[in-house]
Amino acid sequence: MKPILIHEVGPRDGLQAESAVVPTELKLDWIRRMADSGVDIVQVGSFVRGDRMPQMADTDELFRILAKETHGALLSGLVLNEKGLARALDVGVPLICLGVSASETHSRKNTGMGTEEATGRVIAMALEAKAAGRQVQVSVQSAFGCGFEGAIGEDRVLGIVVAYLEAGLTAISLADTAGHAHPEQVRRYVRRILGLHPGAEVTAHIHDTYGLGMASVYAAMEAGARTIETSFGGLGGCPFTKVAAGNVPTEDLVHGLQRTGQRLDIDLVSLVGVTKDVAKHFGRELPGCVYKTGPIQAKVMA
Amino acid sequence: MKPILIHEVGPRDGLQAESAVVPTELKLDWIRRMADSGVDIVQVGSFVRGDRMPQMADTDELFRILAKETHGALLSGLVLNEKGLARALDVGVPLICLGVSASETHSRKNTGMGTEEATGRVIAMALEAKAAGRQVQVSVQSAFGCGFEGAIGEDRVLGIVVAYLEAGLTAISLADTAGHAHPEQVRRYVRRILGLHPGAEVTAHIHDTYGLGMASVYAAMEAGARTIETSFGGLGGCPFTKVAAGNVPTEDLVHGLQRTGQRLDIDLVSLVGVTKDVAKHFGRELPGCVYKTGPIQAKVMA
Repeated sequence: MKPILIHEVGPRDGLQAESAVVPTELKLDWIRRMADSGVDIVQVGSFVRGDRMPQMADTDELFRILAKETHGALLSGLVLNEKGLARALDVGVPLICLGVSASETHSRKNTGMGTEEATGRVIAMALEAKAAGRQVQVSVQSAFGCGFEGAIGEDRVLGIVVAYLEAGLTAISLADTAGHAHPEQVRRYVRRILGLHPGAEVTAHIHDTYGLGMASVYAAMEAGARTIETSFGGLGGCPFTKVAAGNVPTEDLVHGLQRTGQRLDIDLVSLVGVTKDVAKHFGRELPGCVYKTGPIQAKVMA
Repeated sequence: MKPILIHEVGPRDGLQAESAVVPTELKLDWIRRMADSGVDIVQVGSFVRGDRMPQMADTDELFRILAKETHGALLSGLVLNEKGLARALDVGVPLICLGVSASETHSRKNTGMGTEEATGRVIAMALEAKAAGRQVQVSVQSAFGCGFEGAIGEDRVLGIVVAYLEAGLTAISLADTAGHAHPEQVRRYVRRILGLHPGAEVTAHIHDTYGLGMASVYAAMEAGARTIETSFGGLGGCPFTKVAAGNVPTEDLVHGLQRTGQRLDIDLVSLVGVTKDVAKHFGRELPGCVYKTGPIQAKVMA
């Protein structure tokens, strides 16, 4: 079995949920430490309009600085539209992440387009990025349910996946935007995608809104997902409304994997150190457990 | 498939971890509401010495009061020694829970006896309780690892299980006292017990110390565990050291089960109400998610 890959999305999905903008130097410190910890991919930021989302306004600058350095992890950036793609290509983003919401309402609110139109545009952008020599990941957002619409039809989600596969886009992320994912559902969706295309590289991006986050991540891994998107400390969601939550905490998942002898190459102490600093910076306790408890000393189980 | 049963242990495992003693009237209110919510078993308290653990000093009184009432749930009590058993029999506890620690160090610290001696005594007490017409559950504590010893040999755990089964004790709980349980480990242990005795009624009691609690509970259910022990809001562990954590939150698990149409007979709104009151009483946020977010409106997934 291939090892599970970790895609750290805290600097993007975590920090965009915070009202306070993190200074570029501090972001760079966290990103560099994550990118040298042994995790596989680090998401640096999102190519949105800086006036609309000041938390992500330095994304281009971050990539320009990081491009001059050497780190262990692949760096990724989230692209939402053609202008963002041009910026991402300009600053040399190695892995470009794009996505479509399976929820018609969510799609229209986010992009002004329905799901079908958005799918066509995302595929066109993804092919352009590939043609420019970049790695590409395409996602289905609100894949497991939507805060606006509730349940989202499984065939609707798989329809987008089929469109991706037919376009030759085989690195596919299922994103649990609202945190509605359920282990059985995640297992079934991942299996269906691998049934459609055994060579697909499936990623799971799960938010822990209702307490099922880690259980859904384990279901995804058991079903054959290759990559899990996680956030340091579980940072993310909205600390004020409490109805959204962050991704599964990176260090908790890595600790769990290491319990069975997997990913011992990742420096858990370093991950815990970053999360402690992130929690200290925001002045509150984050959802993660292991950064508070420390790892189990008998790391590999009997 | 038989439905998953919920054993609410918050009034015992949750409250014994709090330094402040909860007034009897308030405990009664929480216990009555949980026992009428549709959960299957509620653990009222522990028959320990009241001077050693004042949080549990009113356990006999609680059972005497509750014995005069009619509630939907079976009531359970934890018994640690012969004196406790006599008290439990005296106040008419319907389900008597007993256990042995698989960790020699933990066993000696808790009982002054090693695991082997303690197993013999627990089996003798369990048979006495059965002879007195009570239902009995026997557990293996520190089954998945120990805060003192680290990893605990799987054969050591299964050896205690075999002793229970040979004595005709088939309701067996695997307790993750230190929170070291890992989904793969839980799945394997549950399967091995059912392999030894397909009619065994296996219970999983998991603490969420390292963020794998709910994932381990799902692994237990998938492997055939019949009952899950949970705590309202995830109350438990030690809020000061942060190295212990509570059980998986009752309302988060019930919410998860209801997402796939299971246990729709349990009144989730009532569970959430109790947890809100418990959190308010202790004046702090508990680990549970659903009592903060509210349930997903589209309860049963597509």
